[in-house]
Amino acid sequence: MIQKPLILVSNDDGISAPGLRVLIKIMNEFGEVVVVAPDGPQSGMGHAITLNSALRCDKVHIDNGPQEEYSCSGTPVDCVKLAVNKILKRKPDLCVSGINHGSNSSINVIYSGTMSAAMEGALHEIPSIGFSLLDHSHEADFSASVKIVRKLVSQVLNEGLPQGSCLNVNIPNLPSKQIKGIRICRQANANWIEEFDERKDPSGRTYYWLSGKFQNYDEGEDTDEWALSNKYVSIVPVQYDVTAHNVIPLLNKWVL
Amino acid sequence: MIQKPLILVSNDDGISAPGLRVLIKIMNEFGEVVVVAPDGPQSGMGHAITLNSALRCDKVHIDNGPQEEYSCSGTPVDCVKLAVNKILKRKPDLCVSGINHGSNSSINVIYSGTMSAAMEGALHEIPSIGFSLLDHSHEADFSASVKIVRKLVSQVLNEGLPQGSCLNVNIPNLPSKQIKGIRICRQANANWIEEFDERKDPSGRTYYWLSGKFQNYDEGEDTDEWALSNKYVSIVPVQYDVTAHNVIPLLNKWVL
Repeated sequence: MIQKPLILVSNDDGISAPGLRVLIKIMNEFGEVVVVAPDGPQSGMGHAITLNSALRCDKVHIDNGPQEEYSCSGTPVDCVKLAVNKILKRKPDLCVSGINHGSNSSINVIYSGTMSAAMEGALHEIPSIGFSLLDHSHEADFSASVKIVRKLVSQVLNEGLPQGSCLNVNIPNLPSKQIKGIRICRQANANWIEEFDERKDPSGRTYYWLSGKFQNYDEGEDTDEWALSNKYVSIVPVQYDVTAHNVIPLLNKWVL
Repeated sequence: MIQKPLILVSNDDGISAPGLRVLIKIMNEFGEVVVVAPDGPQSGMGHAITLNSALRCDKVHIDNGPQEEYSCSGTPVDCVKLAVNKILKRKPDLCVSGINHGSNSSINVIYSGTMSAAMEGALHEIPSIGFSLLDHSHEADFSASVKIVRKLVSQVLNEGLPQGSCLNVNIPNLPSKQIKGIRICRQANANWIEEFDERKDPSGRTYYWLSGKFQNYDEGEDTDEWALSNKYVSIVPVQYDVTAHNVIPLLNKWVL
């Protein structure tokens, strides 16, 4: 490559999240880095975009390093759209999102702002990867993630990714030596069983907090859930064509 | 069916949207109707869920009819989760979302709150349909939609839908007589070319409004875009497994 790669970095935990800081530091080894990330937590925002209000996007400097940084009032998907359209001087060679504090495996992919940023990158025909570590805490230890991120970024910068897809990378919360390897997987058939916590406010009105228990229904050894619980990094290639192609023949039998 | 079907109705345009009102009226013909819809516009919210704030859900009565109605402070997906977990006495026989004011064809499916509500229904193993009319205006004419909604609801109540999928139904903005029929389609390969409108606020700070032009790159006659521009109703079966299965063999060749 003659030019240094241009790398767009975003996330959904917000611009000051430790996981993003780690990712920026690694990306600085690979190329010219521009960060456009939400100004606060945007977890669970899925592929939301801001249609009914205006967006702010301010140049900031959170920590040292050669990266250029922007703090955006919108969702992760807004960040990628704004970056591509208004901030970056050319189409980036790579879009990375994360490192997310917490899993985005199996069904979490459709709720995840981190993965939606990567998906939006793919929609702009940019090779894109979302990284997540299986530890929700602010103090999560990203040291084992560094080598994995380096390996995959290097691979994708060299080889690209097929159009219409991006990568969902989940990393078990283990020391580097205990991670057994990397597996290419499919999204497990798993889901959340909701448990809304019902409370009363001081004036007696009811309100609810969403919580839930994760439930894996899938015993396949080719799934991300299997890989992660067996100490492997999981990579699921993810696409934005959500057509259930196998259902089309059935519907064609309907008399409509 | 011995019991009257229990039908959950939601949308993303908010509980007072005319499209929702039309849908409720039709659903009252089919069964016992419970509406749980956002208290205001939630277009473009994708599969967002509310993790960082509490949810309100109040019983309301917007217009006449036997339906039970709840106005919820959350996203369309929150509405479905809350309905299933806290409001409905049993799992509903059908979940319908819409009728959306504006298209949810092709790539719009991943940004659409209307379709995410249907998808969330499918995640709860409820046969689910999202309906959209190709007219954004508040004064949209839903008269041609009534017959189409009736036909598809009747079909799905009788036959169900394969697990893991729901239906994305888009209706051209035409009088009933000009609609040529209903076609089963795949999601067209189309996208938005963003155009951020850059403005200055009274204190000189920049802000942005997201807008864009829709671009269809897909000439296939089996797509939703083709059907709609040729005066057909489009039905795309949609799934929440977003694994790009065809990319897995390629990734398996990587040396990782």
